[in-house]
Amino acid sequence: MGTMKLRLGMIGGGQGAFIGAVHRIAARMDDEYTLVCGAFSSDAEKSKEMGLILQLDAARVYETYHQLLESESRLPPNERVQVISIVTPNHLHFEPAKLALENGFHVILDKPATFSLFEAVRLKEICRESGKLLCLTHTYTGYPMVKEARQIVAGGKLGEIRKIYAEYPQGWLSRFEEGSGNNKQAAWRTDPSRSGIAGAMGDIGTHAFNLVEYVSGLQVTKLCADINTVVKGRKLDDDGAVLLKFSNGSSGVLIASQIVTGEENNVKIRVYGEQGGLEWQQSDANTLKLMMIDEPVQILRTGSAYLSSYASHNTRTPAGHPEGYLEAFANLYRNFAQTIKALLANEEPSPEHLDFPGVDEGVRGMAFIESVIRSGQSDVKWSEFSLKYEDN
Amino acid sequence: MGTMKLRLGMIGGGQGAFIGAVHRIAARMDDEYTLVCGAFSSDAEKSKEMGLILQLDAARVYETYHQLLESESRLPPNERVQVISIVTPNHLHFEPAKLALENGFHVILDKPATFSLFEAVRLKEICRESGKLLCLTHTYTGYPMVKEARQIVAGGKLGEIRKIYAEYPQGWLSRFEEGSGNNKQAAWRTDPSRSGIAGAMGDIGTHAFNLVEYVSGLQVTKLCADINTVVKGRKLDDDGAVLLKFSNGSSGVLIASQIVTGEENNVKIRVYGEQGGLEWQQSDANTLKLMMIDEPVQILRTGSAYLSSYASHNTRTPAGHPEGYLEAFANLYRNFAQTIKALLANEEPSPEHLDFPGVDEGVRGMAFIESVIRSGQSDVKWSEFSLKYEDN
Amino acid sequence: MGTMKLRLGMIGGGQGAFIGAVHRIAARMDDEYTLVCGAFSSDAEKSKEMGLILQLDAARVYETYHQLLESESRLPPNERVQVISIVTPNHLHFEPAKLALENGFHVILDKPATFSLFEAVRLKEICRESGKLLCLTHTYTGYPMVKEARQIVAGGKLGEIRKIYAEYPQGWLSRFEEGSGNNKQAAWRTDPSRSGIAGAMGDIGTHAFNLVEYVSGLQVTKLCADINTVVKGRKLDDDGAVLLKFSNGSSGVLIASQIVTGEENNVKIRVYGEQGGLEWQQSDANTLKLMMIDEPVQILRTGSAYLSSYASHNTRTPAGHPEGYLEAFANLYRNFAQTIKALLANEEPSPEHLDFPGVDEGVRGMAFIESVIRSGQSDVKWSEFSLKYEDN
Amino acid sequence: MGTMKLRLGMIGGGQGAFIGAVHRIAARMDDEYTLVCGAFSSDAEKSKEMGLILQLDAARVYETYHQLLESESRLPPNERVQVISIVTPNHLHFEPAKLALENGFHVILDKPATFSLFEAVRLKEICRESGKLLCLTHTYTGYPMVKEARQIVAGGKLGEIRKIYAEYPQGWLSRFEEGSGNNKQAAWRTDPSRSGIAGAMGDIGTHAFNLVEYVSGLQVTKLCADINTVVKGRKLDDDGAVLLKFSNGSSGVLIASQIVTGEENNVKIRVYGEQGGLEWQQSDANTLKLMMIDEPVQILRTGSAYLSSYASHNTRTPAGHPEGYLEAFANLYRNFAQTIKALLANEEPSPEHLDFPGVDEGVRGMAFIESVIRSGQSDVKWSEFSLKYEDN
Repeated sequence: MGTMKLRLGMIGGGQGAFIGAVHRIAARMDDEYTLVCGAFSSDAEKSKEMGLILQLDAARVYETYHQLLESESRLPPNERVQVISIVTPNHLHFEPAKLALENGFHVILDKPATFSLFEAVRLKEICRESGKLLCLTHTYTGYPMVKEARQIVAGGKLGEIRKIYAEYPQGWLSRFEEGSGNNKQAAWRTDPSRSGIAGAMGDIGTHAFNLVEYVSGLQVTKLCADINTVVKGRKLDDDGAVLLKFSNGSSGVLIASQIVTGEENNVKIRVYGEQGGLEWQQSDANTLKLMMIDEPVQILRTGSAYLSSYASHNTRTPAGHPEGYLEAFANLYRNFAQTIKALLANEEPSPEHLDFPGVDEGVRGMAFIESVIRSGQSDVKWSEFSLKYEDN
Repeated sequence: MGTMKLRLGMIGGGQGAFIGAVHRIAARMDDEYTLVCGAFSSDAEKSKEMGLILQLDAARVYETYHQLLESESRLPPNERVQVISIVTPNHLHFEPAKLALENGFHVILDKPATFSLFEAVRLKEICRESGKLLCLTHTYTGYPMVKEARQIVAGGKLGEIRKIYAEYPQGWLSRFEEGSGNNKQAAWRTDPSRSGIAGAMGDIGTHAFNLVEYVSGLQVTKLCADINTVVKGRKLDDDGAVLLKFSNGSSGVLIASQIVTGEENNVKIRVYGEQGGLEWQQSDANTLKLMMIDEPVQILRTGSAYLSSYASHNTRTPAGHPEGYLEAFANLYRNFAQTIKALLANEEPSPEHLDFPGVDEGVRGMAFIESVIRSGQSDVKWSEFSLKYEDN
Repeated sequence: MGTMKLRLGMIGGGQGAFIGAVHRIAARMDDEYTLVCGAFSSDAEKSKEMGLILQLDAARVYETYHQLLESESRLPPNERVQVISIVTPNHLHFEPAKLALENGFHVILDKPATFSLFEAVRLKEICRESGKLLCLTHTYTGYPMVKEARQIVAGGKLGEIRKIYAEYPQGWLSRFEEGSGNNKQAAWRTDPSRSGIAGAMGDIGTHAFNLVEYVSGLQVTKLCADINTVVKGRKLDDDGAVLLKFSNGSSGVLIASQIVTGEENNVKIRVYGEQGGLEWQQSDANTLKLMMIDEPVQILRTGSAYLSSYASHNTRTPAGHPEGYLEAFANLYRNFAQTIKALLANEEPSPEHLDFPGVDEGVRGMAFIESVIRSGQSDVKWSEFSLKYEDN
Repeated sequence: MGTMKLRLGMIGGGQGAFIGAVHRIAARMDDEYTLVCGAFSSDAEKSKEMGLILQLDAARVYETYHQLLESESRLPPNERVQVISIVTPNHLHFEPAKLALENGFHVILDKPATFSLFEAVRLKEICRESGKLLCLTHTYTGYPMVKEARQIVAGGKLGEIRKIYAEYPQGWLSRFEEGSGNNKQAAWRTDPSRSGIAGAMGDIGTHAFNLVEYVSGLQVTKLCADINTVVKGRKLDDDGAVLLKFSNGSSGVLIASQIVTGEENNVKIRVYGEQGGLEWQQSDANTLKLMMIDEPVQILRTGSAYLSSYASHNTRTPAGHPEGYLEAFANLYRNFAQTIKALLANEEPSPEHLDFPGVDEGVRGMAFIESVIRSGQSDVKWSEFSLKYEDN
């Protein structure tokens, strides 16, 4: 295992798209993939240009994702693309993902999974039916110290979990950026027709939510949300705070904002149990703070020999040589690849390889978005966290 | 001004009482007071012992606070105590404060102001009627960098405020300490007959609340609280989170917990406006982080020449020689003393001297406690922040 | 013990003197002293003014230190001053200290001990002859976490010590402040007739040196210094770095500078042994970083129950309520007082009380100054650390 | 530019070799190279295995580097390798680099450049004669905030530089690892026949030295070194400290150690000028601390719009998404590639592209090693920093 590269195709990710470039670096980092085809833009010319930049075979740079999926399906199995990365805005997640799966391709999908919970639930069914795999790129759970945090909680070291704080403060939408005409990111992320019913809660709230459930192993059962649109003229929420109740009776707070001026991307989580607590934040991503009752705080560091196999497996350099966001992203790609390769080899993927977010996380993320927006509009304090959706 | 020491008496603060010792250090720090009398314990013997330790004139160590106030009132004006520090549990705040004020003494009162909002409102009236001053020891607003934060906001540098986060995480009540029989602090603070209707929210929630209103200059108008008693057998809340709405339409989140295992006393506040944000936390108390949009973050430091008169006035050492909790506490004592001395000299106290929390903050703090507990029990999402109280 | 206040007198410390005010706060903090007399300035009028501010009995505010020592000696034993604090510039350390000791008073002396090594050695003899005690105010060894560091090393936890780094970077003399005419501190500290042969090395190099020997329990045996005067017109060194060799064969580096623009007072020490290392710095004074081989770094914090008696004894507040520079300074005063009181009571002082810097540290500090300046002028690499002095 | 991949070959970097894997990730990160051939190990079998893992054409996996260079030279120009990465131990740097250059290939060379200064000087001549380029992988100067630091100094913002501190503390050789038989890294790095005359000074001292000269733009002219072998049985230095003098008359301190137990890889630099100072350290690699006199410290952050083109050019993600060691390494590869491509296109490389360490830095690094070891053995304090070498 490890010696064969998976053939990767990309939908979306034309020039100027932030996340497309990140996906490509992540795919290259560990040499598990080779990019063979793409439909990079809804503008055929732009797609072609990107194909040139990426030195792809021009015949495999497509004008639309339909073309891509159709044409690739007709190639011989040993040439044909194997994994499709979808890095388009949210309204263009479901349809290409569905087609890709139905055509027998594995899918890597940018978060949040879909435009609506309805779509996410459908996507899950399609996954099951297709027998193909889906990886949802919740970057932060790719960090080795986040994986270590999950292992510590799962191992019972903290005792029963009693409190969770998660926050994702950003300042980049502090002004009416979408009005500037030259901020593509801001434009689509604040546009309900492309983002869905949520802005900040969809973009970064789901990251915080995923982090909470991943690290704690608990599920949110009820929530109470304060959802705000702070910047004048904006069409979607840009700020929110959510009180949470979990499956074991414990509680938490989730904060996500894109208008807290001066903040960067310092996503942070704190989890407390009866015996101890832990803290991780992206601004010091290679550190995990472990606070056991009556003991000195311990500083666990990426790359150290005392860490679990989950942390070690997702690390490339010795302690003190920081790994960052791109490495965390690449861990998702690598684990997904290694799982696929195991399956191709009729082997059991290791639990470390299987440790990537998938369609279940996608469904829960979309349920979070819909529950949280609904709660924000409600006068009742506690809303159920619900997988029920409007059929549309 | 500055050359005369005020005569101080103390009610409460016997041996083993944490906060009594802190008050005494604060009173001594800047040589503004001389401790002349006390009723240190409801146990006469213990009161006497503490008087000995403090080398007080035995005749002025009293068995009860009634005795103290009565006897001192009969002393000649130039011997008689001038300021009474009350450092008893909450149920013993109102009565001695009332008597002290009515007997013509200024009062320094530990927080929260009283046992109930009803008492606090009464206390405010008594203050007014007596013409005497009251200082409420919300320690954290005594820190120079918290004062600087308030000045920055007040000066408009951040623009209109849009979001506030405050948190006070503690772990010291992670276990059922009050059951141990040897933790006096835990015993009274978790006892409704001594603490009032709130535990964590009364003890530290009020600190966070005071910090929020002090720094932002805004007032909470509505709130939505999740209030929990996490540790089995405990009689009062030990954990909570509150969504806030402010007078200018902005919103915030306030977190206070005493069961987040491993945390110390890292009270923290973040305030964001249209133009920038700021952050302060007690674990790095001499630093104020100022985040102006599009600019590098600035690290403002206690003792630096570029700070406002409010910060400078409350600092004793050059930048880099850290001042801490006791100095912050002492700033309250010093500013209160300097205000009293100005009045005694028929002078106008400077705004820097007048910058200490008083009975108004006490009333709002008690309103916070009652509003937050009420909200915690309500199924309605938003409760009014209300100064209305039950007459009891 | 603890119930009697020691009568304190002060030599130096007039208005505008930074360190005099610090000494007075330190003396007041724990109620171990009562200031009864002073000769605060060589200008009789200014001394009188300070006496008024401090509300001293005018009869005990003296024009000169000779007067003070003489007059106080004639007072009845139970009125007479017991401890003399000397907070004058270096050239005025030896003579008043000598007289104070010879007149039967204990002495608290600001660092460095004297103007020259010759004087320091003499002072040690006088101490011995007088039977009186001397406390040298090397502030940083008063910090609880510095004491913890010493205990950790002494307990052998780190194994044999192999490397020590100490640094004291300051920026306050980055410009020619002494030329401004209004910076008293800069004026005398850069004046050879008042400071002695060293500037930065005497003022802060000795602090770093003391910290090194205190924490490690080792003694410097050889050194190699690079000593610089960076700012034009300055008469003494304002910058230096020293390679060190220790009694056990290990080595170290000591850095002290007053011209590293932008730095405050972040004195820092790192000590490494075979089994682990530790790090402390003033900017995070309540934290001690303990790095044991193959283990997560441990963060030890002031006020925690797991600390040694030496740390606990020197702490006033619970973990998370930061103590700072003034508390560290006050620890010296308190331990000195408690030692004196034990002696007065014919009791053995506890080792925690005896843990303050004295005349031996003073002698070594002056030997450091003379050795380091000599080495700075030498072309030979390694100079002996020598207690030999020029008789003058 | 940017659309053609350079064909890369690798010498060294078999399984278990730490730095070989890092080079390969760096080469892949930005899609500037495609690995086409290698001689990965002196053991032909192992070389073959690595070729399989990397999915190389078996015909281009060679048994020796001689074979590689010879065979590749005979391939048609548009197939032939273009750039050779040399990632062998130091004693195997010069010969393959020489041959590669002479055969018309560009060279990427791991640091330190060679086994001896003699070789480095020769290599520089060979570079010049060959007209080919050489990139020396001093990783830390690839960090965007290190580049920003250099630009700030070069722009004069700090004024004349007066003091520089650099340190590289590591703990990984705290024990006699080379005796364990299973630590390949430790084995060759402590072996004079493979590493050269220096251990720690060659491995990490040169990194610190390079950082100093790169950021400051100054050159070391004299030095005074304390060089130690702390761990028993070790054959090369594992610890050292060096006093530095620079071309403009200023001074500095350089610390490098591999036996400071508990330390990771926290290389750090501080540079101070008349007007301000700056600080960077790898443990917080995306932050540059700028300390201007009389102003609040500024925290400059990777990815921010206010940074220079040099920082921006070397960044892939928005502020707050940390980039780390691998990205810094990849910056070297990318800039080298872009420079080569510019030359191939007969274009002028941009100054940002040209900003990578080359053979000149290699010569100075080897001069540093020889000067520092010589000084360590000398009784004279100051040794000249010298480019003179022993002919061997």
